[in-house]
Amino acid sequence: MADEVVLLDFLLSTFGMRVRIALAEKGIKYELKEEDLMSKSPLLLQMNPVHKKIPVLIHNGKPICESPIIVEYIEEVWKDKNPLLPCDHYQRAQARFWADYGDKKIYIIGKMLWTTKGEKQEAAKKEFIEALKLLEEQLGEKTYFGGDNLGFVDIALVPYYSWFKVYEIFGTLNIENECPKFIAWAKRCLLKESVSKSLPDQHKVYEFIVEIKKKFGME
Amino acid sequence: MADEVVLLDFLLSTFGMRVRIALAEKGIKYELKEEDLMSKSPLLLQMNPVHKKIPVLIHNGKPICESPIIVEYIEEVWKDKNPLLPCDHYQRAQARFWADYGDKKIYIIGKMLWTTKGEKQEAAKKEFIEALKLLEEQLGEKTYFGGDNLGFVDIALVPYYSWFKVYEIFGTLNIENECPKFIAWAKRCLLKESVSKSLPDQHKVYEFIVEIKKKFGME
Repeated sequence: MADEVVLLDFLLSTFGMRVRIALAEKGIKYELKEEDLMSKSPLLLQMNPVHKKIPVLIHNGKPICESPIIVEYIEEVWKDKNPLLPCDHYQRAQARFWADYGDKKIYIIGKMLWTTKGEKQEAAKKEFIEALKLLEEQLGEKTYFGGDNLGFVDIALVPYYSWFKVYEIFGTLNIENECPKFIAWAKRCLLKESVSKSLPDQHKVYEFIVEIKKKFGME
Repeated sequence: MADEVVLLDFLLSTFGMRVRIALAEKGIKYELKEEDLMSKSPLLLQMNPVHKKIPVLIHNGKPICESPIIVEYIEEVWKDKNPLLPCDHYQRAQARFWADYGDKKIYIIGKMLWTTKGEKQEAAKKEFIEALKLLEEQLGEKTYFGGDNLGFVDIALVPYYSWFKVYEIFGTLNIENECPKFIAWAKRCLLKESVSKSLPDQHKVYEFIVEIKKKFGME
């Protein structure tokens, strides 16, 4: 039986981007169903009744939810092409650690950059740059976090790059000035079609957030 | 070379308990170094400079941090004895999903039960019971979440049981009345030495929280 792969997604979601990059790296054909997050489809509610969130990967009718779990699933099912995790147990644990770090820091602090002001925002700016600098240290002289090949950590982190215009404009930050190595790494990732085709233009994300802020009366 | 395994831990930590259960299930001998969380050791700060948190597993000198990542590491390195994750890819993804659900719900809402009052606490009580009921549904008629054997989800969830007295007393809740199947499952887990030797007495956790609340002037 040929695999039937469906992805419930929202194109500006960093979590959705991860799954799209992983699927592209593995060369898996799939049907993308874009969700309207203001009016979620019955299929999404049926496939992810617990969190009711995208992305959901539906593989031969069975749903897998939560982006890090989906990426691990993709890695395990289609393990032969472009391994995303190293074989070495310790290196695997390290990759999971830094991917998780991205979610604990970049996602949460990034959101504070465009949803807070004043002191809170200033603290978030400082913490955001510190987190990127720590990631730069981890990257070191490697091409990717995965070494010579794009891996689990790259897939977890590079989607945030598409939100950098949002972070920079609302947070009055110049990320490239502070973390040139991180930006250079993101641009290297974008040379790969798996990434460039999965990441929306930064301006699109910015316009979306401008709309969201208007809609919810956030200044 | 014999494996040198050291665990930096704090005995009342639900995250630490997980690692202890996993190590016990795999029959791994290790040295436990208990940390004073008010005055962290230089070793902890050196081994987990990013989060500065226990538990940290130090395997032949190399640190692994974050309890779900540590448990996956233990599973991968000592894979032959007592598998904690199923072989089937979909079932593995499901196990990771429900373990993650525990952290997203039980941990966070549980903390609200003893740190908030009034409306916030009432909302937390409702959400807490709903989460346990959903877990009861998942458990169904199985002995453990892992089926006939204790697995990844059991190890992730059962440590919360040692905090139930805290949740019940400060949250004025009777969990057994609301979720008898969940309590019966926790008691089944406790029949295993790997669990009973890893979980502190509920009263000890309660006394610790009473002390913490006094120390930080929380009513």
